[in-house]
Amino acid sequence: MLHLIIADSELELVPEKIRDHPSVVNYAKRRGKKPDEVLLDSTYHHSALRLLEDGERRGRPDIVHLCLLNALESILNKEGKLRVYVHTRNNEIIYIKPETRLPRNYNRFVGLMESLFKKKAVPEDLELLKMEEGTLSELLEEIGPDGVFIMHENGTPVTPKKFGERLVGYNSPAVIVGGFPHGDFLSVVEGEKISIYKEPLMAWTIVNEVLVNYEASLLW
Amino acid sequence: MLHLIIADSELELVPEKIRDHPSVVNYAKRRGKKPDEVLLDSTYHHSALRLLEDGERRGRPDIVHLCLLNALESILNKEGKLRVYVHTRNNEIIYIKPETRLPRNYNRFVGLMESLFKKKAVPEDLELLKMEEGTLSELLEEIGPDGVFIMHENGTPVTPKKFGERLVGYNSPAVIVGGFPHGDFLSVVEGEKISIYKEPLMAWTIVNEVLVNYEASLLW
Repeated sequence: MLHLIIADSELELVPEKIRDHPSVVNYAKRRGKKPDEVLLDSTYHHSALRLLEDGERRGRPDIVHLCLLNALESILNKEGKLRVYVHTRNNEIIYIKPETRLPRNYNRFVGLMESLFKKKAVPEDLELLKMEEGTLSELLEEIGPDGVFIMHENGTPVTPKKFGERLVGYNSPAVIVGGFPHGDFLSVVEGEKISIYKEPLMAWTIVNEVLVNYEASLLW
Repeated sequence: MLHLIIADSELELVPEKIRDHPSVVNYAKRRGKKPDEVLLDSTYHHSALRLLEDGERRGRPDIVHLCLLNALESILNKEGKLRVYVHTRNNEIIYIKPETRLPRNYNRFVGLMESLFKKKAVPEDLELLKMEEGTLSELLEEIGPDGVFIMHENGTPVTPKKFGERLVGYNSPAVIVGGFPHGDFLSVVEGEKISIYKEPLMAWTIVNEVLVNYEASLLW
């Protein structure tokens, strides 16, 4: 079983500091919601983001959406060999049941995440998605993996294929992929840093490379 | 060089027949556009789609978006070994330059496609994306691949890994993936039908499996 963690994801409700910014107020009104109920989104809150610390990387639900759609629809997940978690910059953890069929439409996904921030579980009966407070270290402690790998530009260079082969040597490895557009992890975690390519890659590209190469070694 | 074709994609402007449907009129007004300028989108035009032939599969720009984001950000593309084309149900072909950085945000992608349907090239000077009329057969004739593979539920069963290895035996193979949610290809094309999994897979999952396994055999 591979444990995939999208860590330090730039997924959050609009922070208090910019809730009265025109770009936020108008966006919320247009969507029939209150400013404290909507996700921060760099596409729509660009000018307000400048007022926030780390503003140039925040408000990226799209990255989480892409990583999850690729992971949940992967062959590895269909074979029951994958668990996916989203950890956020504010130390929330989203647990996702493997059978979850996420909305393909981005706007519906955003609505779902907003509902999750409010209710902490959606749908409330099935709890396909569940949100709890927790740090990346706490999540790892809970999972108890026999190997922790952090996908990192400055990690040990390994080809994606060799990395997939290496992962198969573990019983339940955890692979950590940054859920942010650029820069470094905010969380500090012990593990082996791995670089699968000479240039930075998008988070969802790393997810694809890791899952498909692991699957190729494990199953075929 | 691998030629990836997302074929019979459910990407089109709202057809004339339903341009006066309330769901379309309101959607266009909300976006400050005319009904004949907006993409058909099953998320928003669900009730109108029932009035169209094949309505249950049409209006899926999200599938094209996901396939393209995965393909263009893949290691294979960064290595200069990939060309991507989108062929639509109405026999248009979109040529995409490998260096294109597509909008990550779905709504921006939709706006870009609407602009492409109108202007036939975006941006008009660089022509990163260019749209021309053409069938799938005409596209294949133009590419001149030395192997044509159609990813199909009822194809010859091959593991994704073995398929990647097979592709490397060709100089410039074409791989055709259906850009629709379910059902069969509309276009008739000669080629070897390949099935990489026992169950149907999402179009973007097939894209990931093909590109990563080909890359693993070709590069590492």
